Amino acid sequence: MSEVREKAALAKQAAQIMNRLTTAQKNEALLAMADALLAEQDAIIAANALDLERGRGNGTSESLLDRLKLTPARIASIAEGLRQVASLADPVGLTLESFRRPNGLLVEKISVPLGVIGMIYEARPNVTVDAAALCLKTGNAVVLRGGSAALESNRRIVGVLRDALAGTALPPDALQLVEDPSRASVDEMLKLNGLLDVVIPRGGAALIRNVVENATVPVIETGAGICHTFVDASAAYEMAADIAFNAKVQRPSVCNSMETLLVHEDFAEKHLRALADRFRSANVELRGCERTRALVPEAAAATDADYATEYNDYIMNIRVVDGLEQALTHIARFGTMHSECIVTEDEANAAAFMQRVDAAAVYHNASTRFTDGFEFGYGAEIGISTQKLHARGPMGLPALTSTKFRVYGSGQIRN
Amino acid sequence: MSEVREKAALAKQAAQIMNRLTTAQKNEALLAMADALLAEQDAIIAANALDLERGRGNGTSESLLDRLKLTPARIASIAEGLRQVASLADPVGLTLESFRRPNGLLVEKISVPLGVIGMIYEARPNVTVDAAALCLKTGNAVVLRGGSAALESNRRIVGVLRDALAGTALPPDALQLVEDPSRASVDEMLKLNGLLDVVIPRGGAALIRNVVENATVPVIETGAGICHTFVDASAAYEMAADIAFNAKVQRPSVCNSMETLLVHEDFAEKHLRALADRFRSANVELRGCERTRALVPEAAAATDADYATEYNDYIMNIRVVDGLEQALTHIARFGTMHSECIVTEDEANAAAFMQRVDAAAVYHNASTRFTDGFEFGYGAEIGISTQKLHARGPMGLPALTSTKFRVYGSGQIRN
Repeated sequence: MSEVREKAALAKQAAQIMNRLTTAQKNEALLAMADALLAEQDAIIAANALDLERGRGNGTSESLLDRLKLTPARIASIAEGLRQVASLADPVGLTLESFRRPNGLLVEKISVPLGVIGMIYEARPNVTVDAAALCLKTGNAVVLRGGSAALESNRRIVGVLRDALAGTALPPDALQLVEDPSRASVDEMLKLNGLLDVVIPRGGAALIRNVVENATVPVIETGAGICHTFVDASAAYEMAADIAFNAKVQRPSVCNSMETLLVHEDFAEKHLRALADRFRSANVELRGCERTRALVPEAAAATDADYATEYNDYIMNIRVVDGLEQALTHIARFGTMHSECIVTEDEANAAAFMQRVDAAAVYHNASTRFTDGFEFGYGAEIGISTQKLHARGPMGLPALTSTKFRVYGSGQIRN
Repeated sequence: MSEVREKAALAKQAAQIMNRLTTAQKNEALLAMADALLAEQDAIIAANALDLERGRGNGTSESLLDRLKLTPARIASIAEGLRQVASLADPVGLTLESFRRPNGLLVEKISVPLGVIGMIYEARPNVTVDAAALCLKTGNAVVLRGGSAALESNRRIVGVLRDALAGTALPPDALQLVEDPSRASVDEMLKLNGLLDVVIPRGGAALIRNVVENATVPVIETGAGICHTFVDASAAYEMAADIAFNAKVQRPSVCNSMETLLVHEDFAEKHLRALADRFRSANVELRGCERTRALVPEAAAATDADYATEYNDYIMNIRVVDGLEQALTHIARFGTMHSECIVTEDEANAAAFMQRVDAAAVYHNASTRFTDGFEFGYGAEIGISTQKLHARGPMGLPALTSTKFRVYGSGQIRN
């Protein structure tokens, strides 16, 4: 039996115990995990050093090496994250519906764990702990398949966490790490129907596309975001400029940042020059439509391919539009149904935008950067779902649960 | 462009109108569809006659021909179904959550249509109307791909319904029928990410397996059910016999019927002979474990393959177990997480079974046949989901909705 299948089978067995734990038992385990990470931080940092060394040898970029690197301060922050998850409300075991049928049957709909969750992600070792915490808190077992760049770190972290679980009510087998660094182990996970209940990819567009295209296990798709800000004719300049600038520049590498600014022609006439200067002052590379370039000649010509690109970088497109309808058409064509914003003082246009744009989150007069589990007050974030089934937008702990009907009778049969 | 892609693209355009309709507009359209079916029933029955004739020529079985056949009474019943869907509450546009963040942002979580639903199903033409009604009521556009055996009927029915929509606020393009009877049209639908938001298969195990294994569009899996009834030591004979008999015999062809009876050894010793006779009196073929065959010698030997089979027929397995744990192990191994029942007077065993069995619906002292949208009082049924994401168990209208966050600000940006 392959490593992946064997570990998934162990996780499935463990899920039958996870399923029955109390909130207190789960929280104790999370706190024990936090303590263990701190107690074993030297060993973890030593393992991480091996990953960093191999990364340097491979010519990995400094920014990726920085994301990979663990320090005492970062481990303390990861441990603190575990404690925060312990403090969150348990979404399992809630009675979501309860009704009695005319035949006397009592039907209850109860929240239950999903079962076994497969997590496929890239380099950052903090995701290993974060995903483990969220899955265990919700009574699930988890099979982690992290990036090979962090293999030594992940192996040591998961070893420490499993050892910590051994002293708690939780079965250590509820936490599995796939160590096979080959693409084959990912491909196998994607087809493990019957062992995995769901697969969640976290990472770049290529990783997510591979999962969506090849998984037969149900997937929660996260991540890709081509987000727009539409500045309407009536927008106040300062507010529009602040929102658009924040959406692009505050953290360009994330999925809820803006890729394309759509500007009403009247606003553009008055303000686009000043707005473009503000972006240029932050070293944002500008690409624009013909009407944009008439006002901002230094912008390069934007192509349809540009409008369809998630730059995740200091690059953006600007398009001047006739009005709301053209903005909506552009968003429907190029958007990824993630986060979309209108800046306007016109209530009718705002209402139309909020109603008609098909996206996980739509904003009136606020930055798209708020699409985030913490910003929404969920206390945790599994990711941001960009699909319409199960969960959409920022996912808190309830996104890692399913439901079960419990039906209580006294001998009822169907006629 | 292929027929499938073209029709899906038209549906997607129509979805942007469906999205904005009032409940009254949708209900008026459903009533107009009902009227049109009755007004055009002769033409529909004439088209149906062509399907029946071709079916007879192909050697289609009488029972399948009967399922395919439309009569004035059946059309009246289908039209009545449309009126019932019109009378149900609209699950779209509800505010599911609403909260204000410390920074002043108002966040609302609103129920919205899924968008475009692909329905892939088999012969019965009533499913065409049923699926159309449920999808349109929930503000979705729908692309129907029915079985080729009912193509003439479906073509005429969809023609009548689209003509009816032309006189309402609903765009006729919200209702599409794929007429290409080849397997290729199904395969293409399964990969239409970006045009279809979800695919729902309704039909036999082979159809569902094909969809689950090949779709890149998110799927709501329905259908397959290997359901068990566990009769515990303390079960009252009459109740246990009634429930097990009902679960097997009342309608063996459906997914919530019982395939395997698990019997506690103490109960078996006293009652299995009588219980087996009751099943035999209904011409149920029995397959049993060794301990069963010691008590019921006429039972054939049951194999693991039998335990893993959804007979959908007058055939069943019987296995004598040591007790609850062995029953749970058997269900975890062979069940399909659909509907599972314990008959017992022992509250502790009942509670353990209801907690530990991982299934869409678990029953204490009632027949598994109640797993059904109408029996649960939902007034409609899309199908019975056997997956854990999005919806699990009988699906009513809310299963055809997604959510959207609307965030209202006054210039908030993220720090």
